[in-house]
Order: sequence, then C-alpha cells, then structure tokens
Amino acid sequence: MSLLLLGRWAEGEQQAWLQALQAAMPGEQWLLETPRTAAEAATVEAAIVANPPHGSLQGLPNLRLIQSVWAGVDKLLGDPTLPAEVPLARMVDPAMNEAMVHTALWAVLGLHRGFFRLQAQQREALWRPLPQLRAQEWSVLVLGLGELGGRVAMALAAQGYAVSGWSRSPRRLDGVHCCHGEAGLAEAMAGADTLINLLPLTPQTQGFFDAPHLAACKPGAGLVNLARGAHVDEAALLAALDSGQIGHALLDVFAVEPLPPTHRFWSHPRVTVLPHTAAQTDARSAALVVAENLAALRRGAPLQHLVARTRGY
Amino acid sequence: MSLLLLGRWAEGEQQAWLQALQAAMPGEQWLLETPRTAAEAATVEAAIVANPPHGSLQGLPNLRLIQSVWAGVDKLLGDPTLPAEVPLARMVDPAMNEAMVHTALWAVLGLHRGFFRLQAQQREALWRPLPQLRAQEWSVLVLGLGELGGRVAMALAAQGYAVSGWSRSPRRLDGVHCCHGEAGLAEAMAGADTLINLLPLTPQTQGFFDAPHLAACKPGAGLVNLARGAHVDEAALLAALDSGQIGHALLDVFAVEPLPPTHRFWSHPRVTVLPHTAAQTDARSAALVVAENLAALRRGAPLQHLVARTRGY
Ligand SMILES: NC(=O)c1ccc[n+]([C@@H]2O[C@H](COP(=O)([O-])OP(=O)(O)OC[C@H]3O[C@@H](n4cnc5c(N)ncnc54)[C@H](OP(=O)(O)O)[C@@H]3O)[C@@H](O)[C@H]2O)c1
Ligand SMILES: NC(=O)c1ccc[n+]([C@@H]2O[C@H](COP(=O)([O-])OP(=O)(O)OC[C@H]3O[C@@H](n4cnc5c(N)ncnc54)[C@H](OP(=O)(O)O)[C@@H]3O)[C@@H](O)[C@H]2O)c1
Repeated sequence: MSLLLLGRWAEGEQQAWLQALQAAMPGEQWLLETPRTAAEAATVEAAIVANPPHGSLQGLPNLRLIQSVWAGVDKLLGDPTLPAEVPLARMVDPAMNEAMVHTALWAVLGLHRGFFRLQAQQREALWRPLPQLRAQEWSVLVLGLGELGGRVAMALAAQGYAVSGWSRSPRRLDGVHCCHGEAGLAEAMAGADTLINLLPLTPQTQGFFDAPHLAACKPGAGLVNLARGAHVDEAALLAALDSGQIGHALLDVFAVEPLPPTHRFWSHPRVTVLPHTAAQTDARSAALVVAENLAALRRGAPLQHLVARTRGY
Repeated sequence: MSLLLLGRWAEGEQQAWLQALQAAMPGEQWLLETPRTAAEAATVEAAIVANPPHGSLQGLPNLRLIQSVWAGVDKLLGDPTLPAEVPLARMVDPAMNEAMVHTALWAVLGLHRGFFRLQAQQREALWRPLPQLRAQEWSVLVLGLGELGGRVAMALAAQGYAVSGWSRSPRRLDGVHCCHGEAGLAEAMAGADTLINLLPLTPQTQGFFDAPHLAACKPGAGLVNLARGAHVDEAALLAALDSGQIGHALLDVFAVEPLPPTHRFWSHPRVTVLPHTAAQTDARSAALVVAENLAALRRGAPLQHLVARTRGY
C-alpha cells in the first residue's frame, strides 16, 4: 500500500512535507503525483493533501482517509468529485494553534494600547501619548469558538480582556461570555471594541462582514480577520473604514490572494495587511498529527478532526 | 496635618490625581503647592510627588514619607536637597504592571513573528510571507528582574518563549533562566534574539547599551528599551542599526523627551518609536497604593516599595 502526497505547493514545500512525514512515519511508500495506472491507484490507502487540483482524488478504489495538512477545508470541499464516503480530516496542529493565538494577541494589543495609531504618529514625527485603558476595560468578540477561536478567546481572557465569543452551537469556555446563533449576536457585536473573525468559510458565513453587520458594530471598532477573505465584503469594509465606523482593520486574508498591488488596503492608513501568515501549519508537528491519524485508521480507532461535510467544516 | 501633592504635571494631571487620591483617602487635608509659611510647612506629614522641582521638599520639619507616584525615581534622587532621613517609596501599581507586560508582549510578538517587517513590506505593497518560528525557538533576555522585569519575564515564558533574565543579586523566577552580575551576562546577551531593558537608571546602568555591549549582541538582535533613555548610547545604537548588528529597535524612552522632531529614530525604517507610554501609572489604582502606604505609616507598620538610596533604586 502507499500514501499519496498531493497539493498545490510553493517552491520546495512538497519536499519539506515529505521529509517531515518520513521522519514521523518511517518505512511508508510515498506517491508524489497522481497515480498513472489503475494498479498504482489501487495501492493508495490514504491521501495527505494541501488543496490539490479538483478531480485529483478520484479513482482511488482503496482510499480510506483524506487528511488535509491545512486547517481550512473550504477549497477542498469545493471539489464536487471528492469521494463522498471517504473520511476527511483537517489539520489541527499545536504549533499553528500557538501561532494563531500570538497573532490575535498582537492585533488586540495593538488596537487596545493604540500602538497602530502611535506607529501612524511616528510617520509624522508626532509625540503624542494616548490614554491608557486597562485590559478589563477593552471588550473583544471572537466569532467562531472552534480549535482556533476557542484558544484565542481563552488566551485573551487570560490577559485580562473582557472577552465574548460566538458559535453555532452552545459552548462553554473559561472566562469567556459565550453566545450562539442569532440570539445575542447583535448585542455582542454592538459592545465589542475589537472583533476577531475565526469562523470557517461555509455558505452560512460567507460575506458575514457585509454593510449591515459592519454598521451593527460599535463606532470605531477594530476588525481583525484571521479566517478567510470571503468572510468580508471588501467594498463595504473600505466604506466603513473611510467613514470611521470601523476604526482599524487588521487583515490576514483577502478575496484575492496575493492581495493585488493596487488594492486600497495596502495604502489605507488604518489597515494592517498581513500576507496570510496569521498561523502557518508547521510540518514538523503536523506530521506527527498525520501519523497519529493514520495509526488510528489502521487499528480501527476513531479518527481525529473529521470534517462534517454537511455542516461544511 | 496635611498631605502635599507636588509635581511637574501635564494639563489637568494634578487635578486628576487629587480626585483619585481623595476618593481613596477621604477626609485628608491637601496642599497643592509648596507651603508658603513655616507654619504651613510644619503641617506636612507626607509628600506625594511626581518629580517635583529640585529643592521643593526642603524645610518640611514633620515630613515622614515621600511617596512617588512614578515607578522610576532616578530624577527624584538627582535632587541633592532631598531630605536624606525621610523614607522614600516609589510606585508599584498593578495597572502599570499589566501595561508594561502588554507592551513587552507586543514588542516581542512583533519581532518574533516578523510583524514589524511585514508592516514595512506593506508600505511597498509587497506580499511576502516570512518563515514562522515557534516561541520556544525565540530567546528573549530581560535585563532587570524587578517589579516590571520579573513580571515581563514570566509572562513571556508563559507564552512559550525561551526567556533568560539578568539582575544584580540572584533571583529565581518560574520558567526563566536567571543570571546575575557580570557572570553569565556575555553569554546571555550573545544568545538572545530579543533584549528587553527594564533596568533602573543608576550610575552603574547608565549607558549600558554602548558600542561594546551592542557589539556583544547576536547579529540582527532586536532591542526593546522600556526603561530609561539614558541607558542607551543613541549614536552607538544608530550605528548598530545601520550596520544591521541590531535588526530592529523598539524605543519608548529617549535621552531627550519628547524625541526632537528631526531625530533619526523617527524615520529609521527599523525603529519603532513610542512616546514614553509603555506603562503609565493609573491614578485610580495607584491612589489605593498610596493610601495603603500612608495607613501603614500611621499605624507604624512596614512601608511598601521603599527605595534603597545607596543602591539608587
Ligand atoms: N489566516 C490563517 O493563517 C489561518 C490559519 C488556519 C486557519 N484559518 C481559518 O481559521 C478559521 C477557524 O478555524 P478553526 O480550525 O478554529 O475552525 P473550527 O474548529 O471548525 O471552528 C469553527 C467555529 O465556528 C463556529 N461556526 C461555524 N459556523 C457558524 C455559523 N454559521 N454561525 C456561528 N458560528 C459558526 C463553530 O461553531 P460550533 O462550535 O457550534 O461548531 C466553531 O465554534 C477557518 O476559517 C480557517 O480557515 C486561518
Ligand atoms: N517606559 C515606561 O513607561 C516606564 C514605566 C515605569 C517604569 N519604567 C522604568 O522601568 C525600569 C524598571 O522598573 P522596576 O520597577 O521594575 O525596577 P525595580 O523593581 O527596582 O527592579 C530593578 C531590577 O534591575 C536590577 N538591577 C539594578 N541594578 C542592576 C545592575 N547594576 N546590574 C544588573 N541588574 C541590576 C535589580 O536587581 P536586583 O533584583 O538584584 O535588585 C532588579 O532586578 C526603571 O528604569 C523604570 O524607570 C519605565
């Protein structure tokens, strides 16, 4: 049997993954391209994938697991030929979790303590201290309380922030005021100084930050999008930034990536642009997660981090 | 008896302190200016001060406590007329401690995760992800392990960083590799990706970051100065920044404050300038600290946060 490693990779990326995976699971057979013959295709037991081209997971009769190395599977689920009966697992990587918590912390500290404003003042050689609020006086709303959002919410609460969180089903998190569904959303949005988006991209969440939802925010609120570009109506966000309804946006993800060089976000004085690096999967720790899931598959134990396809995440 | 509230204040600042102090200690008599008569001077039991002009604490025969509302007392100790036999307490304010931890965290996250570099790239509309290191792969050296440095070191360790710390006498802090005196300093400096200065300003620490010490850092290291401007030889730092020996400097304090508009720090691409706001005393919580010390004085209990004048901090 063999393991298929397939994706759309940056330069050297597939090789780095192969090395990490081989270190975590020595002695496996690896296929690095779509099988060319039916006989080869029949050897594939599991596919370890990084958003491979649509269609590339068809015709693998003995495939028992599709393991994504990325956390978000919205692109993968967009492939209509994805074998429906094969379990699909996404990546939950401890190093990526840590990175996301740190990015969110940097964003919230920058907004709460006015560091982004002070950086703008620096460009004008302007020495003007800002009033200092305590963390408990700064309210943060985390949208999405899953692997990443849940950790982010608790880490912010541990720093003293007044944190609320929103999810689809009810959640309980230490020190976090949780609400779910439509009830409570409007109130939570209206009260937040900073909103952090960590929703998955599904038909229900696409375009969440549209003109009405942006208008429902506290005037001058900060928006931190660490999830997916398609969550945001970019024209509506630019209008809200120009009017001051949104005071600052920190954006890691965009409708089109890389963000086109002429996009207004690059030069907007109250936008911080990150190049989709809020949290990168770390091949070294992620390979161990893949190895565990494969071992579970082989001994018939429950698989970790399965995607509920009907839910879309 | 009366309490003397004296300082060099910004607009409205003295009034804000008076309000907070009156709320914390109702029923006290307050003097808001240097006493004009010997009789008035004889009523002063304690002076609550914010770097008052030199000479202004002379001639108070019944003064039993000088309580600074600022954490650093280097300017106060520079007053040769400061009554030598009166206990001098400095401010240790929980809100200020929290603010300092947050500023240090923002600085270290910005350096570790390359956010400052990404902000520079944004100015050129350049989409270029940077490699992501884990916190445990990023070493931070905290110079000074007192009220602020000790808290900062532990907070960074709690975020997963590889933290070492340096003090005058031996210290033990959870999760922090501590060294003291000259021994171990060179090694700790050479190994640190980020150095955070939280030393007090004394004759021993003045000019600590001079050309030899900057040359002893790891090439490309980040320097975060949150203590006092006079700790840094600014010309030597600019040379080290220009050569790349120091990769980035985040500076909250300067030889001359406000930083003069033509100073090169303002426009240097690898310098982040903050206007001495790393951690401001919060009058609301600090007033409670003053009230406690005054109560201790009156019932003859030990005073908190006394300055050892021979040590200079
Ligand atoms: N920028 C980056 O570098 C980067 C890196 C990794 C991941 N991401 C993105 O981060 C996001 C979060 O990932 P994750 O692993 O934390 O996801 P997850 O574990 O699947 O959690 C999703 C959370 O969103 C909630 N949710 C889903 N649909 C909802 C709806 N319609 N209304 C309200 N709440 C809803 C879920 O509610 P329940 O709790 O009720 O299920 C859950 O709490 C994803 O978009 C992912 O693509 C970005
Ligand atoms: N930027 C701002 O907004 C801001 C706000 C508040 C304070 N500050 C500054 O922050 C600094 C730290 O304040 P703090 O309250 O934490 O001071 P602290 O409690 O007095 O602690 C000072 C620390 O430095 C160590 N130290 C002193 N002299 C030393 C020497 N010669 N060599 C090695 N270590 C030495 C001490 O060692 P031992 O442990 O052995 O005594 C102690 O660990 C001060 O400079 C203060 O002015 C800045």
